[in-house]
Amino acid sequence: MRATVMHGAGDVRIEDAPDPAIVEPTDAIMRVVRACVCGSDLWPYNSMEASETGQSMGHEAIGIVEDVGAEVSTIKRGDLVVMPFAISDGTCEFCHEGLQTACVHVGFFGNNGMNGAQAEALRIPYADGTLYPLPVGEDDALLPSLLTLSDVMGTGHHAAVTAKVAPGKRVAVVGDGAVGLCGVIAAKRLGAEQIIILGRHPNRIALAREFGATEVVSERGAEAVERVKELSGGFGVHSVLECVGLDAAVQTAIEIARPGGAVGRVGVPQHQAIPGAEPSFFGNITIGGGPAPVRAYIDELLPDVLEGRIHPGQVFDRAVDLDGVPDGYRAMNDREAIKVMVKP
Amino acid sequence: MRATVMHGAGDVRIEDAPDPAIVEPTDAIMRVVRACVCGSDLWPYNSMEASETGQSMGHEAIGIVEDVGAEVSTIKRGDLVVMPFAISDGTCEFCHEGLQTACVHVGFFGNNGMNGAQAEALRIPYADGTLYPLPVGEDDALLPSLLTLSDVMGTGHHAAVTAKVAPGKRVAVVGDGAVGLCGVIAAKRLGAEQIIILGRHPNRIALAREFGATEVVSERGAEAVERVKELSGGFGVHSVLECVGLDAAVQTAIEIARPGGAVGRVGVPQHQAIPGAEPSFFGNITIGGGPAPVRAYIDELLPDVLEGRIHPGQVFDRAVDLDGVPDGYRAMNDREAIKVMVKP
Repeated sequence: MRATVMHGAGDVRIEDAPDPAIVEPTDAIMRVVRACVCGSDLWPYNSMEASETGQSMGHEAIGIVEDVGAEVSTIKRGDLVVMPFAISDGTCEFCHEGLQTACVHVGFFGNNGMNGAQAEALRIPYADGTLYPLPVGEDDALLPSLLTLSDVMGTGHHAAVTAKVAPGKRVAVVGDGAVGLCGVIAAKRLGAEQIIILGRHPNRIALAREFGATEVVSERGAEAVERVKELSGGFGVHSVLECVGLDAAVQTAIEIARPGGAVGRVGVPQHQAIPGAEPSFFGNITIGGGPAPVRAYIDELLPDVLEGRIHPGQVFDRAVDLDGVPDGYRAMNDREAIKVMVKP
Repeated sequence: MRATVMHGAGDVRIEDAPDPAIVEPTDAIMRVVRACVCGSDLWPYNSMEASETGQSMGHEAIGIVEDVGAEVSTIKRGDLVVMPFAISDGTCEFCHEGLQTACVHVGFFGNNGMNGAQAEALRIPYADGTLYPLPVGEDDALLPSLLTLSDVMGTGHHAAVTAKVAPGKRVAVVGDGAVGLCGVIAAKRLGAEQIIILGRHPNRIALAREFGATEVVSERGAEAVERVKELSGGFGVHSVLECVGLDAAVQTAIEIARPGGAVGRVGVPQHQAIPGAEPSFFGNITIGGGPAPVRAYIDELLPDVLEGRIHPGQVFDRAVDLDGVPDGYRAMNDREAIKVMVKP
C-alpha cells in the first residue's frame, strides 16, 4: 500500500509500505476513506530533523474496517468508523472517566513511530476502545463534518469546555486555524453570548463569522489585549480558547481573560513554560486543556453533525489524493488552505 | 501610634506613626487586637531594596472598630471584625461573584504603600465591603483560629477549592508553612480520602498529621514525584495544593498531579513563567488559584471555627508584642516558628 512519510522539515513523501496486518487480537485494520492534514503536522513540517526512516504521518481519519482481531467484539468488518487521533483501550480508569487521551495504553497515530492515517490503510490497536462506528455510508455528504470528529471539532470543543464556556459568557478564540474555527462552533453551541476571534486571514475570518464569531480582533500583543478588553466591557472575557500553542499566543490568552476566567489550551505547547505566571495568578485565571478526549466527545457532537446543527466540515477548503499530500502540506503551511482533506 | 515598617531586607522596625484618621466616608478606623506575620512577608524580608520611607507591614488582623465614616452602614463602632488581607468594596461585579480579590477597588494591606496591620491601628477603606463582624468578644479563646480567616485558612481553602478537592479524592499539599497546614485542614474538611503533605520540618509535619495528613513526603524534586506516585496508586493525585510559589515547587505540583487533575496555586509566584507547560498540557492538568477571596469564604468557614470543627489557630506557635515583631520575622525566616501572632 501507499502511505505518507515525513523525512525532515519540508520533506513529505508518498511511499510504498507493507500492507498493515493484525498483530494483537485487539487490533483492527482500517481502509482509509478520508484523512486530512492537521495544523499540528506543520510543527514537524517546519522543524523535523532529517531522518532516513522518517515518520508515518496523519492522525485524523474516517475508514472502513477490513479486518478485526479475535478479541475485537464491538467493531465489525464493514463498519464505517471515526478514528480519533489517540489510541484508547476503552477499559482503563481514564477511559471510564472520559479522558481517553490519558489511557494507560494511549498512543498517538502518526507520532513517535506509530503508523499514520495519510495512507491507504492502517492498523488500529485497541479497536473497540479507539474506533467509533458511524450510522452512515462511505459516500455520505456529511463525511467532511464527521471527519472533524477525529480531531479538530473535538479539540475545539475541548478548548471550550476547559475554558468553561457556558450560556451568556463572553468568549475569545486565539487562532483562526481549523481548531480555532471549530472552537467558534463549540463556543456558540455551548451558548456563548459574545465570541471574539483573534486572527487575520480574511477567508478564515469570514468562516469564523459564519460559524458564530461576533467580533474580530486582528491586532497582536498588547494592542490585541486592549482591543479585546474594549470589546468585552473593560475586564476581558470569561473564557479564552487558546488554539495556537506559541508563547505569545498563550500570553495573550491569559491577558485577555477576565479575573476569575479560564483559558482552555489546545494548541500543542512549543515552549517549556507557560508565560504569564503573575497575571494568571493575580487574576485567579484557570489554565486548563490539553489533548482532547475526542473519543468521549463524539457521543455529544455526533447528533449535531448528523442533524445538521453544526457544519465543521466547512474547514476543509481543499481536497487531494495521496499524491497531492506533499502539496497539501505546503498549501497549509503557506496559509493557502485552511485544512486539506485527503482521499487516498 | 506605633507600627511596623520594613526598610529593606532583614530591616524591620517599630516606629511612631500618625494615628489613622477617616479620609473617605466609606472608611473605618480599626484598633488591632491581633495581627500576625505571613509567610509572604518573608519575600520582601529577604529581597527588599533599602528604602528610607519603607513599607508599612501586615495584612492579617482582628480588631475593634473605633470609628466609621458617614457612609459606613453595616459596620459599627465597637464591632470585633476580621480584616481580610484585601480591600473590597462589596458592590462591584467581582465582589458579587465572590472574587473580592479582583474588586475594582482592590488593594492589599501592607503592600505597595498601603498601611499595614502589624500596628496599633489602621484605616480600613470600604469598611462595609472589607470587614467581617464576629459574634464573639475580644478575649475569646477562639481568636487565633478566627485570625486565620483573614488569610491563611481562607487561602488554604482556596487552594483546595481551585485544586477541586472533593469527597474521595487523593490530595497532595506542597509546602508545610501555615498556608499548607491550613490546606490540609481544608482538604480534610472537603472530604479528601488521602492527604499527602510534602514538607520536612518535624514540628510542621506533626501538626499536618494532627490536621489530617495521611502521609508525609520529605523528598524533593524527581524523588518526591516518584514517592507521591507510589503512594497514590501510580498515577499521582487528583488535587495538588501549591502553597510555596517557587519554580521548583510548582514544577513538582504539576508532576505529581494525576492526568485530568488540578493544581491550586496560592503561593505567590516568584518567577515570570509557570514551569511544566508540556506535562501540564499532555496530562490535561488544570492550573488554578491566585489571591484567595477570603472575605467570601468566611461565611463558609466561620461556623466550623465557632463550633470547634476546625482549629487553624494551632498554626500560631509564638506570640509577640509590637516590639517583638522584628524578632518574629527572624524566627519565621529561620523556620524557628511556624507563624507568629502579634498582640499590639
